[in-house]
Amino acid sequence: MFGGLTKIGIIHTPFATKEEAPIQGAFHPEHEGVVEVSPEFAEGLNDIDGFSHLILLYGFDRAAAVELQRSTFLSDERHGLFATRHPARPNPIGLTVVRLLGRDGSTLRVGGIDVLDGTPLLDIKPYIPRFDSFPDATEGWIEGAPNRPKPPGRE
Amino acid sequence: MFGGLTKIGIIHTPFATKEEAPIQGAFHPEHEGVVEVSPEFAEGLNDIDGFSHLILLYGFDRAAAVELQRSTFLSDERHGLFATRHPARPNPIGLTVVRLLGRDGSTLRVGGIDVLDGTPLLDIKPYIPRFDSFPDATEGWIEGAPNRPKPPGRE
Repeated sequence: MFGGLTKIGIIHTPFATKEEAPIQGAFHPEHEGVVEVSPEFAEGLNDIDGFSHLILLYGFDRAAAVELQRSTFLSDERHGLFATRHPARPNPIGLTVVRLLGRDGSTLRVGGIDVLDGTPLLDIKPYIPRFDSFPDATEGWIEGAPNRPKPPGRE
Repeated sequence: MFGGLTKIGIIHTPFATKEEAPIQGAFHPEHEGVVEVSPEFAEGLNDIDGFSHLILLYGFDRAAAVELQRSTFLSDERHGLFATRHPARPNPIGLTVVRLLGRDGSTLRVGGIDVLDGTPLLDIKPYIPRFDSFPDATEGWIEGAPNRPKPPGRE
Protein backbone atom coordinates (compact mmCIF):
# COMPACT_ATOMS: atom_id res chain seq x y z
CA MET A 1 0.00 0.00 0.00
CA PHE A 2 1.03 3.61 -0.51
CA GLY A 3 -1.25 6.02 1.32
CA GLY A 4 -4.68 4.58 0.52
CA LEU A 5 -3.40 3.24 -2.79
CA THR A 6 -2.37 -0.19 -3.98
CA LYS A 7 1.29 -0.70 -4.71
CA ILE A 8 1.24 -2.77 -7.90
CA GLY A 9 5.00 -3.09 -8.12
CA ILE A 10 8.30 -1.37 -7.56
CA ILE A 11 10.59 0.73 -9.76
CA HIS A 12 14.31 0.01 -9.59
CA THR A 13 16.65 2.74 -10.80
CA PRO A 14 20.30 3.76 -10.41
CA PHE A 15 19.23 6.72 -8.23
CA ALA A 16 19.48 6.11 -4.50
CA THR A 17 19.20 9.78 -3.53
CA LYS A 18 17.42 12.90 -4.73
CA GLU A 19 20.79 14.41 -5.60
CA GLU A 20 21.49 11.61 -8.08
CA ALA A 21 18.10 11.57 -9.82
CA PRO A 22 17.82 13.62 -13.01
CA ILE A 23 15.39 16.54 -13.19
CA GLN A 24 13.32 14.81 -15.83
CA GLY A 25 13.95 11.51 -17.54
CA ALA A 26 13.16 12.88 -21.01
CA PHE A 27 16.49 14.69 -20.98
CA HIS A 28 18.32 11.45 -20.27
CA PRO A 29 16.98 8.56 -22.35
CA GLU A 30 20.17 6.64 -21.51
CA HIS A 31 19.12 6.20 -17.86
CA GLU A 32 17.66 2.73 -17.58
CA GLY A 33 15.40 1.34 -14.90
CA VAL A 34 13.48 -1.83 -14.18
CA VAL A 35 9.76 -1.86 -13.46
CA GLU A 36 8.89 -4.97 -11.46
CA VAL A 37 5.15 -5.61 -11.49
CA SER A 38 3.85 -7.81 -8.67
CA PRO A 39 2.92 -11.32 -9.85
CA GLU A 40 -0.78 -10.88 -9.03
CA PHE A 41 -1.00 -8.07 -11.61
CA ALA A 42 1.20 -9.66 -14.29
CA GLU A 43 -1.74 -10.67 -16.51
CA GLY A 44 -2.54 -6.97 -16.95
CA LEU A 45 0.68 -6.55 -18.95
CA ASN A 46 -0.53 -8.61 -21.91
CA ASP A 47 -0.24 -6.70 -25.20
CA ILE A 48 1.91 -3.97 -23.66
CA ASP A 49 4.90 -4.92 -25.82
CA GLY A 50 3.68 -3.02 -28.88
CA PHE A 51 3.90 0.35 -27.20
CA SER A 52 7.20 2.21 -27.46
CA HIS A 53 6.36 4.51 -24.54
CA LEU A 54 4.50 4.04 -21.28
CA ILE A 55 3.11 6.42 -18.68
CA LEU A 56 4.09 5.39 -15.17
CA LEU A 57 2.16 6.69 -12.17
CA TYR A 58 4.09 6.26 -8.96
CA GLY A 59 4.14 7.37 -5.36
CA PHE A 60 6.36 10.24 -4.25
CA ASP A 61 7.24 8.29 -1.11
CA ARG A 62 10.10 10.56 0.00
CA ALA A 63 8.57 13.99 -0.65
CA ALA A 64 8.73 16.92 1.75
CA ALA A 65 5.72 18.70 3.26
CA VAL A 66 3.28 20.38 0.86
CA GLU A 67 3.70 24.11 0.22
CA LEU A 68 1.34 25.70 -2.29
CA GLN A 69 4.07 27.96 -3.65
CA ARG A 70 7.70 26.98 -3.92
CA SER A 71 10.94 27.24 -5.80
CA THR A 72 11.99 24.36 -8.00
CA PHE A 73 15.01 22.80 -9.64
CA LEU A 74 14.56 25.01 -12.65
CA SER A 75 13.82 28.32 -10.92
CA ASP A 76 14.68 30.15 -7.70
CA GLU A 77 11.42 32.08 -7.82
CA ARG A 78 8.38 30.65 -6.12
CA HIS A 79 5.66 29.28 -8.39
CA GLY A 80 2.24 27.87 -7.70
CA LEU A 81 2.55 24.15 -6.98
CA PHE A 82 0.15 23.17 -9.79
CA ALA A 83 2.35 25.09 -12.23
CA THR A 84 5.27 22.84 -11.25
CA ARG A 85 6.07 19.13 -11.19
CA HIS A 86 7.37 19.32 -7.63
CA PRO A 87 6.92 16.02 -5.72
CA ALA A 88 5.35 17.46 -2.54
CA ARG A 89 1.69 17.65 -3.65
CA PRO A 90 -1.69 17.23 -1.92
CA ASN A 91 -1.78 13.80 -3.61
CA PRO A 92 1.85 12.66 -3.90
CA ILE A 93 1.43 10.97 -7.27
CA GLY A 94 4.17 11.29 -9.86
CA LEU A 95 3.92 10.80 -13.60
CA THR A 96 6.72 10.03 -15.99
CA VAL A 97 6.81 8.90 -19.60
CA VAL A 98 9.40 6.20 -20.26
CA ARG A 99 10.51 4.22 -23.28
CA LEU A 100 9.76 0.51 -23.14
CA LEU A 101 13.02 -1.29 -23.97
CA GLY A 102 12.04 -4.85 -23.20
CA ARG A 103 9.85 -7.17 -21.18
CA ASP A 104 10.59 -10.41 -19.38
CA GLY A 105 7.36 -11.71 -17.87
CA SER A 106 6.23 -9.16 -15.34
CA THR A 107 9.50 -7.18 -15.48
CA LEU A 108 9.86 -4.23 -17.84
CA ARG A 109 13.14 -2.61 -18.81
CA VAL A 110 12.60 1.11 -19.44
CA GLY A 111 14.65 4.08 -20.60
CA GLY A 112 14.49 7.75 -19.63
CA ILE A 113 13.62 7.01 -16.03
CA ASP A 114 13.96 9.75 -13.39
CA VAL A 115 12.53 8.31 -10.17
CA LEU A 116 14.27 7.17 -7.01
CA ASP A 117 15.24 3.53 -6.55
CA GLY A 118 12.52 1.59 -4.74
CA THR A 119 9.69 3.90 -5.79
CA PRO A 120 6.21 2.33 -5.41
CA LEU A 121 4.47 1.76 -8.75
CA LEU A 122 0.78 2.73 -8.86
CA ASP A 123 -0.24 2.36 -12.50
CA ILE A 124 1.01 1.77 -16.02
CA LYS A 125 -0.89 3.29 -18.94
CA PRO A 126 0.01 3.02 -22.61
CA TYR A 127 1.28 6.30 -24.07
CA ILE A 128 -0.87 7.04 -27.09
CA PRO A 129 0.39 10.00 -29.12
CA ARG A 130 -3.01 10.96 -30.51
CA PHE A 131 -4.26 11.31 -26.91
CA ASP A 132 -1.08 12.42 -25.13
CA SER A 133 1.28 14.20 -27.50
CA PHE A 134 0.95 17.98 -27.86
CA PRO A 135 4.31 19.08 -29.27
CA ASP A 136 3.20 22.71 -29.67
CA ALA A 137 2.05 23.19 -26.07
CA THR A 138 3.51 26.28 -24.43
CA GLU A 139 5.79 26.00 -21.41
CA GLY A 140 4.69 28.97 -19.30
CA TRP A 141 7.32 30.15 -16.82
CA ILE A 142 9.49 27.13 -17.64
CA GLU A 143 10.08 28.40 -21.20
CA GLY A 144 13.69 29.37 -21.51
CA ALA A 145 14.59 28.00 -18.07
CA PRO A 146 17.95 26.28 -18.60
CA ASN A 147 18.41 22.64 -17.62
CA ARG A 148 20.85 23.42 -14.83
CA PRO A 149 22.43 21.38 -12.05
CA LYS A 150 20.11 20.91 -9.07
CA PRO A 151 20.47 23.57 -6.43
CA PRO A 152 21.76 21.85 -3.26
CA GLY A 153 19.10 20.81 -0.75
CA ARG A 154 16.21 21.52 -3.10
CA GLU A 155 13.76 18.93 -4.38
CA MET B 1 -11.60 12.45 -0.05
CA PHE B 2 -11.49 9.85 -2.81
CA GLY B 3 -10.23 6.51 -1.60
CA GLY B 4 -7.29 7.53 0.56
CA LEU B 5 -6.68 10.57 -1.61
CA THR B 6 -7.45 14.25 -1.19
CA LYS B 7 -10.10 15.68 -3.48
CA ILE B 8 -8.61 19.06 -4.45
CA GLY B 9 -11.59 20.12 -6.55
CA ILE B 10 -14.26 18.95 -8.92
CA ILE B 11 -14.52 18.73 -12.70
CA HIS B 12 -17.74 19.90 -14.32
CA THR B 13 -18.45 18.64 -17.83
CA PRO B 14 -21.44 18.21 -20.16
CA PHE B 15 -21.28 14.44 -19.68
CA ALA B 16 -23.69 13.06 -17.09
CA THR B 17 -23.36 9.43 -18.19
CA LYS B 18 -20.71 7.12 -19.59
CA GLU B 19 -22.69 6.91 -22.83
CA GLU B 20 -22.35 10.67 -23.36
CA ALA B 21 -18.63 10.99 -22.56
CA PRO B 22 -16.25 10.86 -25.53
CA ILE B 23 -13.67 8.07 -25.77
CA GLN B 24 -10.81 10.52 -25.43
CA GLY B 25 -10.93 14.29 -25.18
CA ALA B 26 -8.09 14.80 -27.64
CA PHE B 27 -10.48 13.84 -30.44
CA HIS B 28 -12.94 16.54 -29.35
CA PRO B 29 -11.19 19.80 -28.49
CA GLU B 30 -14.58 21.52 -28.72
CA HIS B 31 -15.85 19.83 -25.56
CA GLU B 32 -15.44 22.34 -22.76
CA GLY B 33 -15.41 21.73 -19.05
CA VAL B 34 -14.81 23.66 -15.87
CA VAL B 35 -12.22 22.66 -13.29
CA GLU B 36 -13.18 24.08 -9.92
CA VAL B 37 -10.25 23.98 -7.50
CA SER B 38 -11.19 24.14 -3.82
CA PRO B 39 -10.39 27.54 -2.24
CA GLU B 40 -7.80 26.10 0.14
CA PHE B 41 -5.67 25.01 -2.85
CA ALA B 42 -6.20 28.13 -5.00
CA GLU B 43 -2.77 29.59 -4.25
CA GLY B 44 -1.21 26.58 -5.98
CA LEU B 45 -2.61 27.82 -9.31
CA ASN B 46 -0.33 30.85 -9.47
CA ASP B 47 1.63 31.00 -12.75
CA ILE B 48 -0.49 28.31 -14.37
CA ASP B 49 -1.85 30.74 -16.97
CA GLY B 50 1.21 30.52 -19.22
CA PHE B 51 0.66 26.86 -20.01
CA SER B 52 -1.52 26.02 -22.99
CA HIS B 53 -2.08 22.44 -21.82
CA LEU B 54 -2.50 20.81 -18.42
CA ILE B 55 -2.43 17.24 -17.19
CA LEU B 56 -5.37 16.44 -14.94
CA LEU B 57 -5.27 13.48 -12.60
CA TYR B 58 -8.71 12.53 -11.39
CA GLY B 59 -10.60 9.76 -9.66
CA PHE B 60 -12.50 7.16 -11.67
CA ASP B 61 -15.33 7.34 -9.15
CA ARG B 62 -17.85 5.34 -11.20
CA ALA B 63 -15.64 2.56 -12.53
CA ALA B 64 -16.60 -1.11 -12.57
CA ALA B 65 -14.71 -3.91 -10.81
CA VAL B 66 -11.12 -4.51 -11.86
CA GLU B 67 -10.44 -7.22 -14.43
CA LEU B 68 -6.84 -7.71 -15.55
CA GLN B 69 -7.88 -8.42 -19.12
CA ARG B 70 -10.82 -6.81 -20.85
CA SER B 71 -12.31 -5.48 -24.03
CA THR B 72 -12.43 -1.73 -24.55
CA PHE B 73 -14.24 0.94 -26.49
CA LEU B 74 -11.78 0.55 -29.33
CA SER B 75 -11.60 -3.22 -29.51
CA ASP B 76 -13.77 -6.27 -28.84
CA GLU B 77 -10.72 -8.40 -28.10
CA ARG B 78 -9.48 -8.61 -24.56
CA HIS B 79 -6.26 -6.79 -23.77
CA GLY B 80 -4.11 -6.57 -20.65
CA LEU B 81 -5.45 -3.76 -18.46
CA PHE B 82 -2.09 -1.92 -18.41
CA ALA B 83 -2.14 -1.88 -22.22
CA THR B 84 -5.46 0.02 -22.08
CA ARG B 85 -6.78 3.24 -20.59
CA HIS B 86 -9.80 1.48 -19.11
CA PRO B 87 -11.10 3.17 -15.91
CA ALA B 88 -11.37 0.07 -13.71
CA ARG B 89 -7.77 -0.19 -12.48
CA PRO B 90 -6.09 -1.32 -9.23
CA ASN B 91 -5.67 2.41 -8.51
CA PRO B 92 -8.64 4.15 -10.17
CA ILE B 93 -6.71 7.24 -11.23
CA GLY B 94 -7.39 8.78 -14.61
CA LEU B 95 -5.17 11.06 -16.63
CA THR B 96 -6.21 13.45 -19.36
CA VAL B 97 -4.46 16.28 -21.16
CA VAL B 98 -6.66 19.35 -21.64
CA ARG B 99 -6.20 22.75 -23.21
CA LEU B 100 -6.33 25.67 -20.76
CA LEU B 101 -8.81 28.17 -22.21
CA GLY B 102 -9.10 30.61 -19.34
CA ARG B 103 -8.89 31.12 -15.60
CA ASP B 104 -11.06 33.04 -13.19
CA GLY B 105 -9.53 32.78 -9.72
CA SER B 106 -9.60 29.12 -8.77
CA THR B 107 -11.80 28.11 -11.71
CA LEU B 108 -10.24 26.92 -14.97
CA ARG B 109 -12.06 26.64 -18.27
CA VAL B 110 -10.61 23.75 -20.28
CA GLY B 111 -11.08 22.23 -23.72
CA GLY B 112 -10.84 18.64 -24.88
CA ILE B 113 -12.29 17.22 -21.70
CA ASP B 114 -13.58 13.65 -21.59
CA VAL B 115 -14.51 12.92 -17.97
CA LEU B 116 -17.90 12.55 -16.32
CA ASP B 117 -19.58 15.54 -14.70
CA GLY B 118 -18.74 15.75 -11.00
CA THR B 119 -15.46 13.85 -11.27
CA PRO B 120 -13.14 14.36 -8.26
CA LEU B 121 -9.97 16.26 -9.15
CA LEU B 122 -6.75 14.85 -7.64
CA ASP B 123 -3.93 16.86 -9.22
CA ILE B 124 -3.06 19.40 -11.89
CA LYS B 125 0.39 19.28 -13.50
CA PRO B 126 1.68 21.57 -16.22
CA TYR B 127 2.06 19.80 -19.58
CA ILE B 128 5.64 20.37 -20.70
CA PRO B 129 6.29 19.13 -24.24
CA ARG B 130 9.99 18.46 -23.72
CA PHE B 131 9.02 16.08 -20.88
CA ASP B 132 5.65 14.80 -22.07
CA SER B 133 5.39 14.93 -25.86
CA PHE B 134 6.53 11.90 -27.86
CA PRO B 135 4.80 12.28 -31.22
CA ASP B 136 6.54 9.26 -32.74
CA ALA B 137 5.54 6.81 -30.02
CA THR B 138 3.99 3.64 -31.37
CA GLU B 139 0.40 2.71 -30.57
CA GLY B 140 0.61 -1.04 -30.10
CA TRP B 141 -2.69 -2.86 -30.59
CA ILE B 142 -4.51 0.49 -30.80
CA GLU B 143 -2.77 1.34 -34.07
CA GLY B 144 -5.35 1.34 -36.80
CA ALA B 145 -8.25 0.87 -34.39
CA PRO B 146 -10.96 3.19 -35.72
CA ASN B 147 -12.53 5.81 -33.47
CA ARG B 148 -15.91 4.13 -33.46
CA PRO B 149 -19.13 4.68 -31.50
CA LYS B 150 -19.04 3.15 -28.03
CA PRO B 151 -20.33 -0.40 -27.90
CA PRO B 152 -23.45 -0.36 -25.68
CA GLY B 153 -22.90 -1.25 -22.04
CA ARG B 154 -19.13 -1.13 -22.26
CA GLU B 155 -16.90 1.28 -20.37
